[in-house]
Amino acid sequence: MSPGGGGQVPTIDEDAARELQALLDGPHAALREATRQRLSALGLEKADGLPRDDYRDLVLQWTREVGRAGDGARSFPREHGGQDDPGGRIATFQTVGHSDLSLLVKMGVQFGLFGGAVHRLGTDKHHRAYLRDIGTLDLPGCFAMSESGHGSDVRSIRTQARYDAEAGEFVLHTPDETARKDWIGNAARHARMAAVFAQLDVAGEAQGVHAFLVPIRHADGSVVAGVEIEDCGDKMGLQGVDNGRLRFSAVRIPRDNLLDRFGTVAEDGVYSSPVRSPGARFFTMIGALVEGRICIGGAGLAVARNALTIAVRWGERRRQFGTGLDMDTPLMDYLTHQRRLLPAVCESYVLQAAHDHLTQQYVEVLEQPEPGGDKQRAVEALAAGLKAVATWHMVAAVQNARECCGGKGYLWENRFASLRNDSDVFVTFEGDNTVLLQLVAKTLLSDYAAQFEDLDAIAMMRTLTSRQAGRVLGDLGRTFKRSDLRDPDWQAEALQFREDRLVDSLARRLRTLVKDGTDPLRALSRCQDHALAAARAHIERLSHELFRANATTPLLEQVRDLAVLSTIEHDRAWWLEHGFLSADASKDLQKQVNALCADLRPHALTLVAGFGIPDALLRAPIAIAEQTGGAGSD
Amino acid sequence: MSPGGGGQVPTIDEDAARELQALLDGPHAALREATRQRLSALGLEKADGLPRDDYRDLVLQWTREVGRAGDGARSFPREHGGQDDPGGRIATFQTVGHSDLSLLVKMGVQFGLFGGAVHRLGTDKHHRAYLRDIGTLDLPGCFAMSESGHGSDVRSIRTQARYDAEAGEFVLHTPDETARKDWIGNAARHARMAAVFAQLDVAGEAQGVHAFLVPIRHADGSVVAGVEIEDCGDKMGLQGVDNGRLRFSAVRIPRDNLLDRFGTVAEDGVYSSPVRSPGARFFTMIGALVEGRICIGGAGLAVARNALTIAVRWGERRRQFGTGLDMDTPLMDYLTHQRRLLPAVCESYVLQAAHDHLTQQYVEVLEQPEPGGDKQRAVEALAAGLKAVATWHMVAAVQNARECCGGKGYLWENRFASLRNDSDVFVTFEGDNTVLLQLVAKTLLSDYAAQFEDLDAIAMMRTLTSRQAGRVLGDLGRTFKRSDLRDPDWQAEALQFREDRLVDSLARRLRTLVKDGTDPLRALSRCQDHALAAARAHIERLSHELFRANATTPLLEQVRDLAVLSTIEHDRAWWLEHGFLSADASKDLQKQVNALCADLRPHALTLVAGFGIPDALLRAPIAIAEQTGGAGSD
Repeated sequence: MSPGGGGQVPTIDEDAARELQALLDGPHAALREATRQRLSALGLEKADGLPRDDYRDLVLQWTREVGRAGDGARSFPREHGGQDDPGGRIATFQTVGHSDLSLLVKMGVQFGLFGGAVHRLGTDKHHRAYLRDIGTLDLPGCFAMSESGHGSDVRSIRTQARYDAEAGEFVLHTPDETARKDWIGNAARHARMAAVFAQLDVAGEAQGVHAFLVPIRHADGSVVAGVEIEDCGDKMGLQGVDNGRLRFSAVRIPRDNLLDRFGTVAEDGVYSSPVRSPGARFFTMIGALVEGRICIGGAGLAVARNALTIAVRWGERRRQFGTGLDMDTPLMDYLTHQRRLLPAVCESYVLQAAHDHLTQQYVEVLEQPEPGGDKQRAVEALAAGLKAVATWHMVAAVQNARECCGGKGYLWENRFASLRNDSDVFVTFEGDNTVLLQLVAKTLLSDYAAQFEDLDAIAMMRTLTSRQAGRVLGDLGRTFKRSDLRDPDWQAEALQFREDRLVDSLARRLRTLVKDGTDPLRALSRCQDHALAAARAHIERLSHELFRANATTPLLEQVRDLAVLSTIEHDRAWWLEHGFLSADASKDLQKQVNALCADLRPHALTLVAGFGIPDALLRAPIAIAEQTGGAGSD
Repeated sequence: MSPGGGGQVPTIDEDAARELQALLDGPHAALREATRQRLSALGLEKADGLPRDDYRDLVLQWTREVGRAGDGARSFPREHGGQDDPGGRIATFQTVGHSDLSLLVKMGVQFGLFGGAVHRLGTDKHHRAYLRDIGTLDLPGCFAMSESGHGSDVRSIRTQARYDAEAGEFVLHTPDETARKDWIGNAARHARMAAVFAQLDVAGEAQGVHAFLVPIRHADGSVVAGVEIEDCGDKMGLQGVDNGRLRFSAVRIPRDNLLDRFGTVAEDGVYSSPVRSPGARFFTMIGALVEGRICIGGAGLAVARNALTIAVRWGERRRQFGTGLDMDTPLMDYLTHQRRLLPAVCESYVLQAAHDHLTQQYVEVLEQPEPGGDKQRAVEALAAGLKAVATWHMVAAVQNARECCGGKGYLWENRFASLRNDSDVFVTFEGDNTVLLQLVAKTLLSDYAAQFEDLDAIAMMRTLTSRQAGRVLGDLGRTFKRSDLRDPDWQAEALQFREDRLVDSLARRLRTLVKDGTDPLRALSRCQDHALAAARAHIERLSHELFRANATTPLLEQVRDLAVLSTIEHDRAWWLEHGFLSADASKDLQKQVNALCADLRPHALTLVAGFGIPDALLRAPIAIAEQTGGAGSD
């Protein structure tokens, strides 16, 4: 019973919840369900209160267990113990995001980053030699890309890999402290091998960044000579992951240890690559690693759902007295509470549609690779942008959910401490969110430039006039009907209009700055806030566009409406400034958000039931079963 | 040297920093400086990695040390070991907010809440008996107000205190689990006495909530018979504070243990009170405890400053490569970075002006009490609203600062884990921020009603027309000059206009709803988002109005401009919707914010130097001295 007693806890519409869950689970529903059951059986509570190194060892054991059950090699080729199923891997990874996040990251490092490097950057000899053992965790490894001085910019890393033709070996070397490999998950305690990114030097010629397999520990755990390993120490969260730092002192590895899909060195010391330009080669290589970003975005959505489920369930149970309504009013009845939780719940459904689309596109690109092609570029841009938008959505959702649970949310047992501390790094690793949105903006700008490629100046102006200015001028006098706001065509137009205009005006500003003599990079920096707004507008437009087809029931139509109207409301000043919203329409928009909150409020429990998170993964006492008595200060 | 090498670290303008610090330190500068030195000497690092109970004991020892040096009894009367200096206490409390927050909260509980209850709700006999020992921590105590079922609503608590006239004793009793005292700091391990809030029953007549001194532990630490104490267990943060739960089974205490300033029971069992109405009595009593909210708001500002100092210093040191500018560009040169940090730095200065004003007003009310008077009501409203605004400012500043430090910010040693986890509860304790803003809105509404008290309907309409509508209509055709935005009169008018309009339209909406038959409380709930917006607008207007007088140098004028324009920018849709900003002016506003970021960027280090936080309190290696090599993945 709720502490306030009396009121009935609203019921879940089980049929609707099943439908919602089927929508979120998508094509990998069975795999997700099997993963949920496997995770539920792990006994996640065993990690509670463990000293750091014991926790790390437990996480290693879990990773091995989950890996051997099939998740480890899922995206690897069948002939190496895998299932050729990267889409399935991305789905199970997201599902692990509902559980212990140290397990998530450990799996990501071992199977995704280390395994992914061997799989996507290596060739058959590497696959045969290593993939099976990587999938079972018989070969624990790490992914040594980041350096202390070079976080977000891989091209500038400074670890050296010189080819010694005489010996037929590469010599890996760390020239100074800024080239130290830093933040390397799995390195401090467990990895026996590292995929090390370094600048390849063949006969005095720089060939750019390549990846090398470097043994760092012997089977007995002792460190290989010439390798120095340091523990990064305590972190805000993810204490079950052993992040470390690596230094190499002229460490020699055989020629075969170059992951040579995109560049190889023959026995006689001649370098060759299927990708001629060093720039293109670098981006092809990096592009092959995009899966990590897709995975982190998906996991961010999972984390947000855990937090929202806990808060909504508690909001139904917890009664608030004396601050407005009757004596026995659940917190969820308060408009502010609804506004803090329900739009985020709806946005969770929307962003999943984008994540699913991205996964599908990514798999298609893998199946029919066309390096540097439009589809691959689109996948890379969406992976970057969605990772940023999804993980910032997560940060806001977790904070709001925690605050909505008051004192109860501050108790360790109710999980917000772990949810937040473990996930917080998602916004700055696998590419800092700000940097990622800049990448998206650059893609938008080149797409924008491309569409005018074949036009002369007059044709270009005509195009602009019809697409942009026409809309603006036409809309200034437009009359807004209340019903417009719930019209998906109107919603789509609003989001498209903002994206088009932001990209267009960004391009014009840059052109003017450059024409006036500003260095192009400096010009982009001067417009950085503009570029980020354009990137975000693009991701928001695309996500809502993709979700639209899913809004097949009256409930899902309301989900769509609340998500899109909240998104527009948040940035409504922009539409006001650009004549797309009148002052009255903008005020009406806010009323509609309130009305939709009221409409969806009775379905709140059903909507989070649709997230399908087992109690064994939620683990927060305030969100599980009937609580006796307990409540906290709000 | 910075990892990127090369570039010179910008210097601090020491004179300007001293001036800024003098402004923030205010009238208690010497006291603050002494406190900073005392805290710096404590050896805060001793707490690192301690098991929970050892940490709690260390915090108790620190609290005793700081208490005996004068902070414990600072606000108590001189004749009881104090200094009659509540303003000084509030200033030192804020200064402690730069250090270990478990120490802060432990001091708040012992000297502020427990000591404050004895001091403000007790009478001479209590002062004589207890205050000296409370100030030296010879009598550790706790403040048992919150109950499991009644967090934010003290009036509904259900702990019973029945007067047994025969025995001349009160009988304290916990009727059920919802009446269990919950979250009581100092209770789980150290307190010997509790100030317990309970419903007083004298001869079968309910007299409302009163506070009673109840011994809960003997001197040897054993628990008093009839009292049951439970540990709240692990929390997200503040692990150095021993929060507990208390239950009473017919515990008897002498008649003198009623803190009887606002209501007493004579030996013969007759109840009397200087405040006739039970409602007024309750609010008088609660009003006497407003100091806690003032203190938490001030501490929130201190926490934000620690986070911002760390991020700005690191932003100067850390070089970012390849994402836009030259090879050797400090992060602080990026517009996004500036936008995430500099407005918050400026707002820190603005909110301190409001905190100082509030402190001063509070002290004046204490010196010349006028229960229920306008000044006291204003103090209570500002304490509530500023606590909410300041602690949400803190949450945003800490999160932005952590993200701006990338992977380095995620390392435990760089303090963001503690800064955030320890402070997060500030937004939901001492009154949940949402509930507090509703209180502010109610005060605004009654002030609004009062101004029309003596007017007939026509006069009221005329007043409204001249004050509001005139402005709106007049402004629709207004031409906006760029310079307007930097004109403090324009800024003040913008903030005042929003507050007036929001309160006015809130009052009208409520009136309409009530006239149409909606229950007044339900009507307020329907307008909850509106009420919160009005409350926030009020606090923002007042804070900026108060800071304006401080903007006496060109640097401080820029601080004022960036703070106020960022505030307006954030909610600029509102001014657009209400015809105060044209679309062009709104766009210009954003350009001005960018321009001010560029103008203030060279002063960033100076502005955080003005916060005056000693390195021994900052403790983050990335913010202190010259770092060799170290950087993290961004």
